[in-house]
Amino acid sequence: MRLLEERIRKDGLVKEGNVLKVDSFLNHQMDIALFNEMGKEWKRLFADAGVTKILTIEASGIGIAAVAAQYFDVPVVFAKKSQSINLDGSVYSTKIQSFTHQRVYDVIVSRKYLSPEDRVLIIDDFLANGNAINGLMEIIREAGAETVGVGIAIEKGFQEGGKLLREQGIRVESLAIIEEMDAKNGTIRFR
Amino acid sequence: MRLLEERIRKDGLVKEGNVLKVDSFLNHQMDIALFNEMGKEWKRLFADAGVTKILTIEASGIGIAAVAAQYFDVPVVFAKKSQSINLDGSVYSTKIQSFTHQRVYDVIVSRKYLSPEDRVLIIDDFLANGNAINGLMEIIREAGAETVGVGIAIEKGFQEGGKLLREQGIRVESLAIIEEMDAKNGTIRFR
Repeated sequence: MRLLEERIRKDGLVKEGNVLKVDSFLNHQMDIALFNEMGKEWKRLFADAGVTKILTIEASGIGIAAVAAQYFDVPVVFAKKSQSINLDGSVYSTKIQSFTHQRVYDVIVSRKYLSPEDRVLIIDDFLANGNAINGLMEIIREAGAETVGVGIAIEKGFQEGGKLLREQGIRVESLAIIEEMDAKNGTIRFR
Repeated sequence: MRLLEERIRKDGLVKEGNVLKVDSFLNHQMDIALFNEMGKEWKRLFADAGVTKILTIEASGIGIAAVAAQYFDVPVVFAKKSQSINLDGSVYSTKIQSFTHQRVYDVIVSRKYLSPEDRVLIIDDFLANGNAINGLMEIIREAGAETVGVGIAIEKGFQEGGKLLREQGIRVESLAIIEEMDAKNGTIRFR
């Protein structure tokens, strides 16, 4: 998606350790007009998927998913990371290793909000090694529901998450795929 | 706001300890059509406030704020709770005591995304004792910006947060204010 690639080139910051900071428009400050364009594009790409629910994970996925959901006219459920006093056995759960925060999270979704009839589109801001997406897919399987697709804003094409998902037959639509990036001179090459 | 009050009556669950569970439509599963109506109502209420930025806090505020921002045509910034490896002194920070999770969070906002020119509307899902809102207002003060209003979905009118904010002259617009609720018979009385 050209609009997103241009924005990444303009405002993204490449840091050492394969870190791309896009917090000026994607995951700290949020450009809602851009999110609307992303939502329209996912709707175009997944128009025939029969999506009944969008699933994302807190916190960075929530804004993107909420705005995108307007084009699908379905509810959004966000998986929760923290241990809450409300945790009481009425949830699907899994563990996800976070690259950014270098720790393992328990991730939960209430059993009330995913059912076997659901055709679920997963939406998230980044796809790198695929840990978060695999965790969400596990929760969807636990619910007996179906993952009909994965919509990603930015995929790090040089990490294996996207490749492994596509090899499983999962339909992954990443709006920008980074082939390589260089922290020294700040350059980014898209696929 | 009648639509929200009706939804709370229909789908809200009153639990012991002054807990109101609205996770079927507000803060776990999210009804985006409802969020749009809430956004329109805040825009009506804060039309003259000259809002340049919306500030919320992860995770439950993000979806509401992102959808509402479409009516203000301004960026949203969400304050982050977790300690990140990206934390590096370039942030405004404060501590917020969480009622739900019974712990104290460090809350940060990058200095890049709030400036002295900003007229900030705070949006959040709940207002009870006001800890989260006070923390966000402290961050706005640190930035030299102005809090022009606070938009809340559900205020627990029997806790003191809203009263204390209004006594300071802060414009608080809560779309539903609960005067009292009873876990035994599940009743809710709105202000």
